[in-house]
Amino acid sequence: MAFYGASDPHDEIPGIGQYDDFHTIDWQRDIARDRMRHRYIVKKRQDSLWDLLKGAHDAWSGWLCVLFVGIAAGFVAGMIDIGASWMSDLKHGICPQAFWFNREQCCWPTKQSVFEEGNCSTWKTWPEIMGMARNGTSAYIISYFWFILWALMFAALSASLVRMFAPYACGSGIPEIKTILSGFIIRGYLGKWTLLIKSVGLMLSVSAGLTLGKEGPMVHIASCIGNIFSHMFPKYGRNEAKKREILSAAAAAGVSVAFGAPIGGVLFSLEEVSYYFPLKTLWRSFFCALIAAFVLRSLTPFGNEHSVLFFVEYNKPWIFFELIPFVFLGIMGGVIGTIFIKANLWWCRYRKFSKLGQYPVAEVLVVTLVTGILCFPNPFTRMNMNELIYLLFSQCSPGDNTNPLCDYKRMNITNGATSSIEVTEPGPGVYHAIILLLLAFVFKLALAVFTFGMKVPAGLFIPSLLLGSIMGRIVGIGVERFAYSYPNIWLFTGECVNGKNLITPGLYAMVGAAATLGGVTRMTVSLVVIMFELTGGVGYIVPLMAAAMASKWVGDALGRQGIYDAHIALNGYPFLDSKEEFAHTTLAADVMQPKRNETLNVITQDSMTVDDIETLLKETEHNGYPVVVSKENQYLVGFVLRRDLNLAIENAKRLIEGITGASIVLFTSAAPIQNLGPPPLKLKKILDMAPITVTDQTPMETVVDMFRKLGLRQTLVTHNGRLLGVITKKDVLRHVKQMDNEDPNTVLFN
Amino acid sequence: MAFYGASDPHDEIPGIGQYDDFHTIDWQRDIARDRMRHRYIVKKRQDSLWDLLKGAHDAWSGWLCVLFVGIAAGFVAGMIDIGASWMSDLKHGICPQAFWFNREQCCWPTKQSVFEEGNCSTWKTWPEIMGMARNGTSAYIISYFWFILWALMFAALSASLVRMFAPYACGSGIPEIKTILSGFIIRGYLGKWTLLIKSVGLMLSVSAGLTLGKEGPMVHIASCIGNIFSHMFPKYGRNEAKKREILSAAAAAGVSVAFGAPIGGVLFSLEEVSYYFPLKTLWRSFFCALIAAFVLRSLTPFGNEHSVLFFVEYNKPWIFFELIPFVFLGIMGGVIGTIFIKANLWWCRYRKFSKLGQYPVAEVLVVTLVTGILCFPNPFTRMNMNELIYLLFSQCSPGDNTNPLCDYKRMNITNGATSSIEVTEPGPGVYHAIILLLLAFVFKLALAVFTFGMKVPAGLFIPSLLLGSIMGRIVGIGVERFAYSYPNIWLFTGECVNGKNLITPGLYAMVGAAATLGGVTRMTVSLVVIMFELTGGVGYIVPLMAAAMASKWVGDALGRQGIYDAHIALNGYPFLDSKEEFAHTTLAADVMQPKRNETLNVITQDSMTVDDIETLLKETEHNGYPVVVSKENQYLVGFVLRRDLNLAIENAKRLIEGITGASIVLFTSAAPIQNLGPPPLKLKKILDMAPITVTDQTPMETVVDMFRKLGLRQTLVTHNGRLLGVITKKDVLRHVKQMDNEDPNTVLFN
Repeated sequence: MAFYGASDPHDEIPGIGQYDDFHTIDWQRDIARDRMRHRYIVKKRQDSLWDLLKGAHDAWSGWLCVLFVGIAAGFVAGMIDIGASWMSDLKHGICPQAFWFNREQCCWPTKQSVFEEGNCSTWKTWPEIMGMARNGTSAYIISYFWFILWALMFAALSASLVRMFAPYACGSGIPEIKTILSGFIIRGYLGKWTLLIKSVGLMLSVSAGLTLGKEGPMVHIASCIGNIFSHMFPKYGRNEAKKREILSAAAAAGVSVAFGAPIGGVLFSLEEVSYYFPLKTLWRSFFCALIAAFVLRSLTPFGNEHSVLFFVEYNKPWIFFELIPFVFLGIMGGVIGTIFIKANLWWCRYRKFSKLGQYPVAEVLVVTLVTGILCFPNPFTRMNMNELIYLLFSQCSPGDNTNPLCDYKRMNITNGATSSIEVTEPGPGVYHAIILLLLAFVFKLALAVFTFGMKVPAGLFIPSLLLGSIMGRIVGIGVERFAYSYPNIWLFTGECVNGKNLITPGLYAMVGAAATLGGVTRMTVSLVVIMFELTGGVGYIVPLMAAAMASKWVGDALGRQGIYDAHIALNGYPFLDSKEEFAHTTLAADVMQPKRNETLNVITQDSMTVDDIETLLKETEHNGYPVVVSKENQYLVGFVLRRDLNLAIENAKRLIEGITGASIVLFTSAAPIQNLGPPPLKLKKILDMAPITVTDQTPMETVVDMFRKLGLRQTLVTHNGRLLGVITKKDVLRHVKQMDNEDPNTVLFN
Repeated sequence: MAFYGASDPHDEIPGIGQYDDFHTIDWQRDIARDRMRHRYIVKKRQDSLWDLLKGAHDAWSGWLCVLFVGIAAGFVAGMIDIGASWMSDLKHGICPQAFWFNREQCCWPTKQSVFEEGNCSTWKTWPEIMGMARNGTSAYIISYFWFILWALMFAALSASLVRMFAPYACGSGIPEIKTILSGFIIRGYLGKWTLLIKSVGLMLSVSAGLTLGKEGPMVHIASCIGNIFSHMFPKYGRNEAKKREILSAAAAAGVSVAFGAPIGGVLFSLEEVSYYFPLKTLWRSFFCALIAAFVLRSLTPFGNEHSVLFFVEYNKPWIFFELIPFVFLGIMGGVIGTIFIKANLWWCRYRKFSKLGQYPVAEVLVVTLVTGILCFPNPFTRMNMNELIYLLFSQCSPGDNTNPLCDYKRMNITNGATSSIEVTEPGPGVYHAIILLLLAFVFKLALAVFTFGMKVPAGLFIPSLLLGSIMGRIVGIGVERFAYSYPNIWLFTGECVNGKNLITPGLYAMVGAAATLGGVTRMTVSLVVIMFELTGGVGYIVPLMAAAMASKWVGDALGRQGIYDAHIALNGYPFLDSKEEFAHTTLAADVMQPKRNETLNVITQDSMTVDDIETLLKETEHNGYPVVVSKENQYLVGFVLRRDLNLAIENAKRLIEGITGASIVLFTSAAPIQNLGPPPLKLKKILDMAPITVTDQTPMETVVDMFRKLGLRQTLVTHNGRLLGVITKKDVLRHVKQMDNEDPNTVLFN
C-alpha cells in the first residue's frame, strides 16, 4: 500500500485526508483513498450479512445520492418558481378570494392571455383594491407607486438577508462552482445557510423586477443540495474528489430545472462547469437531471402541458437564405456579449476597489429604484422577463389582436374554393412596438451591467436571452417586411408563394437569444442543446448552431473570456482552465521553486530529529516537503504533507512513550543506525512513496496537461534522478498569468 | 526544446514521428510535435503575407476539414440510402417507366401506404412483368424465387468484393474504430478502398435482406472519409494524435447520418467510441455531425419532411404505472442483449478457430439463402427492417384498416354533441399479427447471431432495434388489453376515462427497442439521446431512460462486456478501456519489465559506441531504450526510441564523415571525454529528455490512470532516482488481462 499504508481506512490518524479552507485538493490521493476504502468494503463483505448490506449500500449510494439530489433540486426549484411568480404578481395586485394564488391561477377560469395586463375580474390590481377605477391617470400613478414600493421591499429584504446570513449567496455562483469543481475548497459556499438564503433571496430579487434571472443561481442551489446530501454518504462527504462527482451531477440538475432541459444540463455541466468528468458520472448526471426535471414538472408545469419553458408552436421550415440574417444575429450576439462583459467587468472592478463595495444594500436599492422607474412605463419591461421572452418567441396567429407585435394588416385571400385570413404587412402597432422594444433593449442592457455582481442572488441567462430576443425579433420583423415587399426576387424564388408569410420573426428572436447568450457565456454545444430543448424546435438546430458559432467566434475575437471566466479572474480564484491551451515554450526548470540561488527545503529519510522537522515547519510555509535519501544525495524517496507531519508528530508526542525532540524521524523501514538517543519516530505510514515527478527538461505544456488531467496538487522536478525542486498548482497558475502578462499575485490561494 | 530539439519541424530527420503498422501512438509526443509546429507557424506569420495566409489556413484547417468530412459523409450516406432502397425494391419488382425509381418514387403519385405490399399500378412486381396475375399461387412462387435469387446475387457480390478488394470492409467496424481512436495504428483500415468497398458492399448486403443494418458501418464509412480528408491537411494527416480529433468528429457524423441524430452522434462519439476527447473537439464534432445530417436531409429526406428516421406522431402522455412495464422491457432488453452477445461470440469464436473461416463467401450465401427462405413467407419479415420498425413504432389511427396490427374493434362513441370513432379491443388480426411477430422475433434473433461477424459490411443497430420493438409492441398490446379489460382498477384511476385508448403500444415498441439496443451495446446517455432524436418524442425521455438503465444494469450483471468490447477482446486488439476501473492492489514494481533476475537494457549517455548500440538493437526487440548516466549509476537521463535510433544512425553513417562503428554515441551536450578514436556521434536531438516516470511503489491503478489520461506509450520506473525498469502499454494490457484471469497472450500488439 503506497498511500498511507493502512488497509483499514479507520486506522488512519484522525484528520488526515482533510483539507483546509482555500486549499486545492489532490485528486490522485483522494481517488486512491476511495479505492482503498472500496477494496476494504469488498473484502469485508464476505464476513457477515451486515457487512454485505453495507457493501450493497456503498455500491448503491452514488445512485441513491443523485436520486435524492434530483428530487430535492426539483422540489426547491418548484418552490422558487411558485414563490417568485406569486411575489412578482403581488407588485401588480392580489387575488382577494385566495391571496396565495398568483394572477394566472386566479384568472384560470377565465383564461385570458398574459398580455392584456392579466386583469380578469377575479384578480384585483392595487388601484382597484383601493376603490379606484381600473384605468385612468390616478390608477396608473397608484400602480406605479405600488410597483416600485414592492420592488424596493423585496430588494431590500433580499440584500439584507444575503448580507446578514450568507454572504456567499450573492451573484450567480457559477464562477465559484467552476472553481470548486476544479478542486478548490471554499468552506460554507455550498452550505445549508447559503442554500436557504439563496433560495429565498432569489425569489425576492426576481420578484423585485431586477434585471436578473433565476436560472444561473439554480445551479448554485442545486450544488448546495448536492453538497448537503453528499454528507449523508461518507463515500462522498468525506472525500473531496468523489464529492465533486455528486456536485457535477447536481450542477446538471440545476440547469435541468432552470430550463426544463435535462440533456442540455448534462452537457452544460460537462462543457462549462465540470473539470473532472469520468464517463460513468455522465450517466449518473443525466439521471439526476432527469429526475429533477420530472419532479419539477409534476410540481409546476410551466403554465402548460409542455415540459419546456418557452415552447414554440410553429415548425415552419426556414429557407437557406435566412442563414445570412442568422449569422448576422450571431455576430451581433457576440458583440453585445462582449460589450456586456467588458462593461460589467469595469463596473465590478470599480465596485471592488472603491467605497461603493461597502454599501451593498444601498446599491441594490438604488438599482431597484432606477429599474422600477424605467421599466414600469414600458409595457414590455413591466411584465416579467420570462413572459416577454415567450411573447417575442411566439408567432402571430391570424386572430391575435391584443399583442401589439401582432398588429399586422390582415387580408382575406381567396384561392379557388378556400378562403383564409392571412397576416400580411406590419401595421402601425408593430412599428410602435419596435420603438418600445428598442428602448427596452437599451435600458435592460444598461441595467443588466449594473445588476450582475450586486450582492443579491442574480443570474444572467434570462437577461441575455431577453436582449438577444429583442434584437432578433426586430431583425426578424425587418426581414419579414423585406420578404413581403420583394417576394419575387431570386432569394425567395420557389419558396415564397403569393405573399404568404414566409418569415417567422419568432424564430429570429430565438436565434438572437441563443446568439447573445453564447456571446455572454461562450457556451457552444450545451447552448444549442439547451435552446433546442427550451423551445422544443427540433427543426431549428442548424440556425441555432450557425448563430452560436458566429457569436462564439466574434466574441472570442473581441475578448478572450466568457463572463464566468472573467469573474473567476476578477476574484482571483485559482482556476486552471482545461479548455485553454498553454502555448509557451517554458520548461519545468523555469517554473519550479526554489529559483536558482535559493535552497530547497527537504527532509531526509533517516537523519533528521523531531526538533529539526518542527523547526523546518515553523520556518517555512510550504504545504508539503520532499523526502530525500540524504542532504548530500538528494535522490527522491517520497513526499510528505505539512498537515500530515504536524498531525503525526503531535499524535506521537501525545501517545508514544519516549518520543522527544531528539528522536530521529525515520521514513524508511530499514533498521535505524545505532544511536543511543531516544527511540526513533517511524513515519513511513504518512509518506507518499509515489509522488508524481517530471524532469527539469519537461515542457511546461506537458506539466500543465498533467496538472489538469491527473488533478495534481504538486509535482517534483528531478534531473538525472536528483531532486531539483517542486512545482505546485499555485506556481503553475502564477506562471500562466505571468505568461499572459497579467499580475501573478492576484491569485487567491494557499 | 525538449522534444527533438528542432524548432523548425522541417528540420527533422525524415520518418521521425511516424509509426509502424500495429503500433500504439504516443499522444504526448504527437501533441508536443503539433504545438511545436503551431508555434513555428505563429512565429513565421510575421514574415510575409504568404506565411500569414498559411497561418490563417492552419488555424481554419480543423473547421474546414470537418466541414468537408460532414459534407462528404452526408453525401455518401445519401447515396447508400438511395442505392439500398432501390436495390431492396428490386427484389420485389421494378418501375418499368423509370427503372431507376424505387417503389416509393414510382408509386409517389398514387401515395399508397407501405404495408399494402406497395403495389401501385405503376410499379410492377416480377410476376406481373412475366405476364402473370398479381395474386395467386404461381405468382407467389415466382415472387419467392426472384426474392431469393436477387438476395443471393447481392450477397455474393458483396462478399466477393470484400474478399477480393478490401478485407477490412467487413463487419460494423466500430470495435476497430474504438481501437484506432484509442491510439493504435491499423494501416489501410480507414483507406479509400475500404471506403469504396464498404459503401458498395453495404448497399448490397442491406439489399440482400440479411439481418443487418447500415447504421454501424456508417460510422466506419464516415471515419474513412475523415481519414482521407485529414491527409489534405498536414496538421492532421501527419500527426496521428491530431488525426484522431478528426476521426472522432467523423464518427459523430457517422451516427448523425445513420439516424438523423446529430446530438446523439456527438454523445455516441464521446461516450462509446472516442478515447481522447478534448472539449474543443466536442464543438467541432457537433458541427461536423450537423453538416452531415443537413446534407443528407437535403439529398434524401427519409420519405417525409421530418429529418428523423422513425418519426412518431403521437405525443400522448404516459402514466406513472407504465414505468413498471417499461422497466420490465428494460430487463428483457438486457437479457436479450446478453443472449445475443454470448451466442454471437460463441459462433464467432467457432468461425475463427474452425475451417468455416476459410469459406467466407459460401457462409454468406448459406446465411442469405436461409434468411430468404425464412423471411419471405412472413409479411413482417418480408419488408425492410426499417419499415417494420416504423410500423411497430407507429400508432393505429381510427381509419387504418390495412395494417393487421391495427385490426381493432372500432366503436362509435357519442359524447354529447360530438361523436367519434374510438379504437377499442384488439380484433383477431392483432392476435394473428402477434403470432407472426413472435416467429419473426425468433428467426431474426437466430439470424442476427449468425450474421454479425460474417465477412460482409454489417451493423447491428437495426437488428437490435427490431428485436426490441417486436418485444415491446407485443408487451404493449398486452398492457393495452389489460387496461381495456380493467379500466377501473386503482392503477388507472383518474387517468382512464370511459375506456379511451390510454396505452400506446407504439411507445412500448420504442422503449423495447431502446432497451435491446442498450443491452447489446451497453450505451447509456447516447442511447437515450439517439432514441429521443430518432423518434422526435420529446415527452418520452423518462420511459426511455428507465428502460435503458434497467437494461444496462441487467446486462452488466449477466455479462460484463458490450458487443463491441467483446469483439475487441475476441480479436485481441490492444484497447485500454477508459471506463473500467482497475481494482487491484499491484504496484508498478510488479508489472515492470525486466522481472527480477533479468537485466534491463539501457544505453549510457556517453560511453557506448555505435557498434555497441547496433548490437543492442539487433539483440533486443524493444521499441525504445532508457538512457542513463552510466552502467554503474543508473540514474535516468532520457528515453530514445528504437525507430529514431535506427534512422539517426543510418542517416549519420551516410551523411556525416568520419562516423564509424567505433564512434562514441553522445546523448549529452557536454564535451566528450578525450579519446583518440573517430569523432563522436551526437544524438541529443533524438533523446526525449522528459520521459514520464513513476516510482516503483506507485499503485498500478495510478499507472493505468496515467496511461489512459496522458495517452502514454511507456513509462519508466525508478526507485530513489535510480532506473529499475520500463512499463509499456503492452505490459499494462497484459497485466489487466492476467488480473482478470484471461490469457495475456491474446493481445495483438507491437
